[in-house]
Amino acid sequence: MNPWEPCGQPPGDRTANPPLPCTALLGIGTSTRGVAGVARPGGYPPGLAQEFPMQTTFTIRTRGAGLHEFTDEVIRFVRESGREQGLLTLFVQHTSCSLCIQENADPAVQRDLDEFFRRLVPSSDDPSMRWLTHTTEGPDDMPAHIKAALTSVSLSIPVVSGRPALGTWQGVYLFEHRARPQQRRIVAHLGA
Amino acid sequence: MNPWEPCGQPPGDRTANPPLPCTALLGIGTSTRGVAGVARPGGYPPGLAQEFPMQTTFTIRTRGAGLHEFTDEVIRFVRESGREQGLLTLFVQHTSCSLCIQENADPAVQRDLDEFFRRLVPSSDDPSMRWLTHTTEGPDDMPAHIKAALTSVSLSIPVVSGRPALGTWQGVYLFEHRARPQQRRIVAHLGA
Amino acid sequence: MNPWEPCGQPPGDRTANPPLPCTALLGIGTSTRGVAGVARPGGYPPGLAQEFPMQTTFTIRTRGAGLHEFTDEVIRFVRESGREQGLLTLFVQHTSCSLCIQENADPAVQRDLDEFFRRLVPSSDDPSMRWLTHTTEGPDDMPAHIKAALTSVSLSIPVVSGRPALGTWQGVYLFEHRARPQQRRIVAHLGA
Repeated sequence: MNPWEPCGQPPGDRTANPPLPCTALLGIGTSTRGVAGVARPGGYPPGLAQEFPMQTTFTIRTRGAGLHEFTDEVIRFVRESGREQGLLTLFVQHTSCSLCIQENADPAVQRDLDEFFRRLVPSSDDPSMRWLTHTTEGPDDMPAHIKAALTSVSLSIPVVSGRPALGTWQGVYLFEHRARPQQRRIVAHLGA
Repeated sequence: MNPWEPCGQPPGDRTANPPLPCTALLGIGTSTRGVAGVARPGGYPPGLAQEFPMQTTFTIRTRGAGLHEFTDEVIRFVRESGREQGLLTLFVQHTSCSLCIQENADPAVQRDLDEFFRRLVPSSDDPSMRWLTHTTEGPDDMPAHIKAALTSVSLSIPVVSGRPALGTWQGVYLFEHRARPQQRRIVAHLGA
Repeated sequence: MNPWEPCGQPPGDRTANPPLPCTALLGIGTSTRGVAGVARPGGYPPGLAQEFPMQTTFTIRTRGAGLHEFTDEVIRFVRESGREQGLLTLFVQHTSCSLCIQENADPAVQRDLDEFFRRLVPSSDDPSMRWLTHTTEGPDDMPAHIKAALTSVSLSIPVVSGRPALGTWQGVYLFEHRARPQQRRIVAHLGA
């Protein structure tokens, strides 16, 4: 698997960004957990843990629209870096899914969130969305771009005492907006 | 007061993130200004002003939904750091309030903003929101999570010439989405 | 032209942030491309390419509401910095336009996005928006602030192998929400 290979994205009439070499990234791998497969960074060679910045890619396999949590993987990446302080930035390399930090105590919160966005931006085959013109990639594609614009493509979390400074009930999520399974990449950067 | 203590957040069936020790943070304190109390970082010990990154926590006591400005506290934190250049990141440790940068010239902008979000995401006891399932924490709780997802949990502002590079009329706000008073924490990170 | 001069922003009854000196910024200039003029950073003096952080300002002249791409300018800034790894942050110094990363393959995506936000937040002379109170700056002004709050004021993109780690079809856009031409400034910060 080439982690930089585009997935779920259309051929375009524009020049695409060239894929980045994965050799510049650390700890790419694949595992499966729950509804999503998340790439776990492995241990780092001794010297690297002392260097800034550190980068890795989380690969998440989604099984449909909704929120996919990867908080544990994020915490582990920071812990294995050996760094006590820093800034962790997450960046999703797609335009039909996004990132969010939400309550991870009651799963109903995540279902209600997803349902709100479905009602705010219905599928393009809904009569209320007849005005959409980008429809060739399926009725869920343009609404997915809109939902992504309404949420976040990047998140930055301070690292304090070797952990991302998440609040007590905050979880980190990939918010998938496409209906069919996708493979999603999130670049993580741990800097000064 | 333990600045890391959860407030306004529910007990959950999930394992909570452990509270972070406040000893890793600088300048925690409390003051009161207008409708909100904002923790002001005190002066830093001489050596610290030379080191990256610097972190502090702003604690804001809200008196209800709406925008609470803390631009002055942010500018003071940067000034007291002694740094001419850098990147300031603000991260809110809650999921029912958020951050935004908005015009601070006319207070009507802030009222209209809050009113727009109330109309877009009404209270869960409004007939149009009958489909919400996360309702045990009050009719304003799930709408608050949705409004938080629609705005920002983190903001990054370049520091230029010893000041956050805010535009002429930009102010930094905590956007409270809960109806009752809350104590909110924002972690600030000034990095390279 | 003073790149820090406010444009399209109202005189207020609040103390404005003082303009920042442009001498602290690198590579300010002006060019014109398509519907927008984008300031291109020139080459850097030899020594500078080795130092963190690097900062510049992109100035974009918009010709009306909609998305204005400046991906090429962002990539060039990173390339000319000579840095292989880092974190690029973009920050827009206005409250009636915003930033987003969206698909740059099919221009219909950008038109549909703009149209969605027009329908979600109509002009203040639309009967459904009669409740707005901040109307003195024109019927498109308060809706522009709301659209800005719904999207992003800052974006952070990891730099990998000398390039921003954008996905295959991701483009970087200024999202203009005002109807009339504006001159917009985006501060770019390339840090560790």
